[in-house]
Amino acid sequence: MKNVVVLGSTGSIGTQALEVIESHPDQFRLLGISGKHRTDLLAKQIDAFRPLYVAGPGAFPEEYLQNGACRFLPGEEGICSLASMEEADIVVNGISGFSALMPLSESLKKGKTVALANKESIVCGRPLIGDLLARYGGTILPVDSEQSAIFQCMNGEKREQIRRLILTASGGRFFRCTREELKNVTVSQALSHPTWSMGSKITIDSSTLFNKGLEIMEAAYLFDFPGEQIDVLIHPQSIVHSMVEYEDGTVFANMSNPDMRLPIQYAMTYPDRIPSVCRTLDLAGIMELTFFRADPERYPAIRMAYECLKRGGGYPIAYNAANEVAVEAFVNGRILFTDIYDTVEDVLSREIPCPEADLASICDCDRVARKYAETYLVSVQGV
Amino acid sequence: MKNVVVLGSTGSIGTQALEVIESHPDQFRLLGISGKHRTDLLAKQIDAFRPLYVAGPGAFPEEYLQNGACRFLPGEEGICSLASMEEADIVVNGISGFSALMPLSESLKKGKTVALANKESIVCGRPLIGDLLARYGGTILPVDSEQSAIFQCMNGEKREQIRRLILTASGGRFFRCTREELKNVTVSQALSHPTWSMGSKITIDSSTLFNKGLEIMEAAYLFDFPGEQIDVLIHPQSIVHSMVEYEDGTVFANMSNPDMRLPIQYAMTYPDRIPSVCRTLDLAGIMELTFFRADPERYPAIRMAYECLKRGGGYPIAYNAANEVAVEAFVNGRILFTDIYDTVEDVLSREIPCPEADLASICDCDRVARKYAETYLVSVQGV
Repeated sequence: MKNVVVLGSTGSIGTQALEVIESHPDQFRLLGISGKHRTDLLAKQIDAFRPLYVAGPGAFPEEYLQNGACRFLPGEEGICSLASMEEADIVVNGISGFSALMPLSESLKKGKTVALANKESIVCGRPLIGDLLARYGGTILPVDSEQSAIFQCMNGEKREQIRRLILTASGGRFFRCTREELKNVTVSQALSHPTWSMGSKITIDSSTLFNKGLEIMEAAYLFDFPGEQIDVLIHPQSIVHSMVEYEDGTVFANMSNPDMRLPIQYAMTYPDRIPSVCRTLDLAGIMELTFFRADPERYPAIRMAYECLKRGGGYPIAYNAANEVAVEAFVNGRILFTDIYDTVEDVLSREIPCPEADLASICDCDRVARKYAETYLVSVQGV
Repeated sequence: MKNVVVLGSTGSIGTQALEVIESHPDQFRLLGISGKHRTDLLAKQIDAFRPLYVAGPGAFPEEYLQNGACRFLPGEEGICSLASMEEADIVVNGISGFSALMPLSESLKKGKTVALANKESIVCGRPLIGDLLARYGGTILPVDSEQSAIFQCMNGEKREQIRRLILTASGGRFFRCTREELKNVTVSQALSHPTWSMGSKITIDSSTLFNKGLEIMEAAYLFDFPGEQIDVLIHPQSIVHSMVEYEDGTVFANMSNPDMRLPIQYAMTYPDRIPSVCRTLDLAGIMELTFFRADPERYPAIRMAYECLKRGGGYPIAYNAANEVAVEAFVNGRILFTDIYDTVEDVLSREIPCPEADLASICDCDRVARKYAETYLVSVQGV
């Protein structure tokens, strides 16, 4: 029986992690949850799972705490103490965006095993995280379906015999669109994904391919490979979650129906596998799997990711920060879909400071990039 | 440096094994070769590789033996002593058909590691081979691309967490043909395979799907799974060589360009991988991988294989024997393509003795089935 903490329990990853726990009451016990905004859903989760702790910003209504059986841990500090809890066997970190980094670093300081769905914290926090992993012996198990696929395709094989990591990308809804057509993409179009049901930030990132750009950097950092050994293939069916090519020419593909509960569960049961709620893959029913080149020149998010990997320093952080700012502006109707690319391009053309291996320095770098992005957005809207 | 014996060195597997050895002179040394008919090719191989031994039936021309640097080991006995040679680190058994079994059993009696391309010896020799493996601790590494794929998809995973083995079948050239259309298939049509370049017996078997039937039984015996856990999918591109599905719903696919030198090499370097002559897989260039159900009712070779697995005893042997006899009759123009199915169907409707765990008893069973097959062929031709 594993004690599980789920950070961001009201988000897409968090709710699915809870479904995994619910379907295996003999394997997992929910120790604690955290959420930011949706107090009502947190209350329901407390009622259903009876965790010992709930963390979140501000206050938490006393009446939801099961007569004191559940303890409220307030603020950022509360989330961090959940993330590093002695009794937790595994911490599922499903917080979205850059703010996953602080609780992640707290988990790693206690040598925890973290099932991590968040790419931003790897991409931005790399110097810090590398340092913490080396010092405290924690483990990061990837939950992102692509990184989980790569991780699984390495099972039983030798790292030094790997030639390429091949990330697949659904390509989102617009991968065949021209730049002109992309200009007219509406928020609601961008929010509907053909194969995956996910949160709004990641759905937009999936259609801009910034998601894939972040994953290129994430894979490089998680598995320690240079950009030259990481390829992207567009694969609209999202059945092959990613592949690893070995130096003899063998390619292993990790496949399943697209269902995030599967990689979440695998991270929670690793190195074992147990039955899951994921439907059995019926390849004859699907009939065809298609693959297209993801030419970096055609997809600016991918080109910029390789550039950031090469430049290193604060550029991966700036890539992520500028994208976060731009996506929010797009969702709020402030800018066009294609302005997302231009915002990031503009920010990367500026001088970005190089962070040290500490959170403050990474946050500084993030702040600088966000400021540049905001300045650019104001200039765009001014036109 | 591994000392390699290649049995059947003039055949399709044998010549490709020699190409693997040739491309890695730092890894492999050819210790001995054997061949049945093509003395000229054996002579060339002796000249190129300077093996210490050559085995084959009858006599061998003195002038090819490099002034005695290569020793001739005559007859079946010679092949068996090559197969069990003390100095051999690995024996590549590329002999085709049922006659691979005796040298295989000699290898296993000496606890050798055998890279085995031959399905018939597994399917027919099962009781004997299981016994020899248990008693002498030898190892069989599958070379057949499908079995190698399954073997590789198990690396680093737990056997008991496997739900299904999924064998892929190119389907040969005729998998969409009706029974009526199949009647008119000529020998030269049947001998041209769309994706693999192989020997003639296996090419015919591939278009009848008897090859896949044998592989169903081979997989069942090699990996110890019941027929219920083995599926077949038709996949015309022959890029996915086979797959393993785990109980969480994850499917691993082993892929590469179709090139037998790759699984041959993998068996020779296992558990390591080294660069190979196999071209890098370009999925975006191939663009699509397609999959079709291999309905046992539509494909009699597959249906009969499952039946033989269920019935056990001598039936897998009879399946193989009847097919060998029928294929030879087809290649010699004695019968129609569809008569191959009918021959096997007829033989399986008869009483087949159950073999003991010894070669003589297995050979008896094989002989009985061949006799039934011949009798049936005579009756067909009589019409």
